[in-house]
Amino acid sequence: MGGDFGVESAIPGLDIVRKAYPNVHFLIFGDEAKVKPVLNKYGAVAKLSEFIHTDLMVENDQKPSAALRASKGTSMRLAIEAVKEGKADAVVSSGNTGALMAMAKMILKPIAGIHRPALASVFPTLKGPPTIMLDLGANVLVDAETLVQFALLGSIFAKARKGVAEPTVGLLNVGSEDMKGPDHVRAAADLLQDVKLPGKYVGFVEGNDITKGTVDVVVSDGYVGNITLKAIEGVGSFASKTFKQALMSDPLSIFGSLFAFMALKRMKKKLDPRMYNGGVFLGLNGICVKSHGGSDALGFSTAVKLAIQLAQHNYVQTVIDDMTSLMDQETLLVQGLHQA
Amino acid sequence: MGGDFGVESAIPGLDIVRKAYPNVHFLIFGDEAKVKPVLNKYGAVAKLSEFIHTDLMVENDQKPSAALRASKGTSMRLAIEAVKEGKADAVVSSGNTGALMAMAKMILKPIAGIHRPALASVFPTLKGPPTIMLDLGANVLVDAETLVQFALLGSIFAKARKGVAEPTVGLLNVGSEDMKGPDHVRAAADLLQDVKLPGKYVGFVEGNDITKGTVDVVVSDGYVGNITLKAIEGVGSFASKTFKQALMSDPLSIFGSLFAFMALKRMKKKLDPRMYNGGVFLGLNGICVKSHGGSDALGFSTAVKLAIQLAQHNYVQTVIDDMTSLMDQETLLVQGLHQA
Repeated sequence: MGGDFGVESAIPGLDIVRKAYPNVHFLIFGDEAKVKPVLNKYGAVAKLSEFIHTDLMVENDQKPSAALRASKGTSMRLAIEAVKEGKADAVVSSGNTGALMAMAKMILKPIAGIHRPALASVFPTLKGPPTIMLDLGANVLVDAETLVQFALLGSIFAKARKGVAEPTVGLLNVGSEDMKGPDHVRAAADLLQDVKLPGKYVGFVEGNDITKGTVDVVVSDGYVGNITLKAIEGVGSFASKTFKQALMSDPLSIFGSLFAFMALKRMKKKLDPRMYNGGVFLGLNGICVKSHGGSDALGFSTAVKLAIQLAQHNYVQTVIDDMTSLMDQETLLVQGLHQA
Repeated sequence: MGGDFGVESAIPGLDIVRKAYPNVHFLIFGDEAKVKPVLNKYGAVAKLSEFIHTDLMVENDQKPSAALRASKGTSMRLAIEAVKEGKADAVVSSGNTGALMAMAKMILKPIAGIHRPALASVFPTLKGPPTIMLDLGANVLVDAETLVQFALLGSIFAKARKGVAEPTVGLLNVGSEDMKGPDHVRAAADLLQDVKLPGKYVGFVEGNDITKGTVDVVVSDGYVGNITLKAIEGVGSFASKTFKQALMSDPLSIFGSLFAFMALKRMKKKLDPRMYNGGVFLGLNGICVKSHGGSDALGFSTAVKLAIQLAQHNYVQTVIDDMTSLMDQETLLVQGLHQA
């Protein structure tokens, strides 16, 4: 029900998804009056779906705390509860981000031992395969051990999303050599040197390494992660607007850009934010994916596919298994540090 | 002497500067064997210059601490000392950034009351006039009062660079409403509500506001500032490479881009990093500008022009005057907070 286009992007999005994943089954939560007319147009989706009516929904501009109090029976809450009850393997929503995070955390609860869930997403890179980055703003500043947990959550995500056996993990830090970064980042680096991750910790990375594709997973706190994410989105939009303005600025350029049409189309596709849609709320007992509010059908389908990939890789169970090993190691390490 | 091109970019850069500022006078510090041959080719620069020979220089890859210990008599140190002794109004260098910052801090010393000097630079924006941002990495995490001082340093910089009487100042923070950001940022926002700045504090801004041009000055700590700067540089280089690849990918596109040549040239000029060159080390008793190591003559001239603008606006004296007022206000505010 949420996002700028509601069911108008969600149902056609599911139609894209079911072509790639013919065995998928959808539970659709929402207002019958709005959902049914669109669902009727997509018979193949309707056939794979169970529809659950509710006329309650979280508003896009509602404050998370208010949304949480009034959440009972809303489409968002029912969808999350379906995951909690094992009826669904994952929940995807285009709705209010803050409300979704608060509600998912309350209902699904963090995996035992996880200090704080984190928001992760994928970024396009020069190298080709996308970079995964977290935390993008579920938290602000966090301690070193939480950063180590983010590295764990991120590398298991990379395994599921990128299919690499041993993802490389970098810790986002400031550039210069002599300025070794804030205490929590330096302490996390010390821990990561010794801890055994599902991925391979390769050291500090800088802001430009995100789009360079230096590592599979970039780990940061949510303070720097959220600001960096927004800054990257800002430059992307700046570059594309400046580019359009330039090409439309005189008749000869307009003429020229007609010939370069296919090339520009390919570039647009490569940088298309819809191909990178889907913020995943990691560290909960269940998979919860946030689709961008402004996404169309293609964008929404990307978010749903991401949810399917994570479910197929048993993301949650893998984190639970690896957390046990990590906690044992951390306890030893922290004891070691205190004795040293 | 420093940077990738040394005197080969510096002297031709000064030739560009003297055309815009015919009354400028240069002190050139460096190795006679290297400087003189190039200076001989630029008679107009030589006429406006005093040359001071030294065969000692800071290496580009030297650690700042090592550079500092062995700094006596180097071209970098002599140039900074010229500012200290009042022989020069500003120093510009393409050399080792860490060494320059350490040496400038040691010799010029922070202005009385300034907790920590900060690194500032200008960013291109969609709106047109550039945004000034600090701290870009002279520090990592700082306290709230230091952020308030950065706001002061930045708004006086904006007056000099942008010529606006009352620059708008935003505090860089995370996006969502319910996540109000880390403690030091929130405390700085509280202080900025009450403090009288040379500019006007307008509240929190997000990462995408930097290139949007929402405010004249974006204030952050050096941890988030440095990572954001690098991330923005990364996306810029990513976009331009992807764009080039796309246009060169098939014969029709190459043909088309010939017609769009002028438009592409204009765009390149608008985004040209050489037009935004110059990191200024603010808060010292003297003006110190770092030119990017990879800059050519045009880039170097931008950095020198920035130094001249700051000198013409009596940047240091203005900060000294406004600091006195700020410190009085802060003392009252902090006392107020303790009593409340």
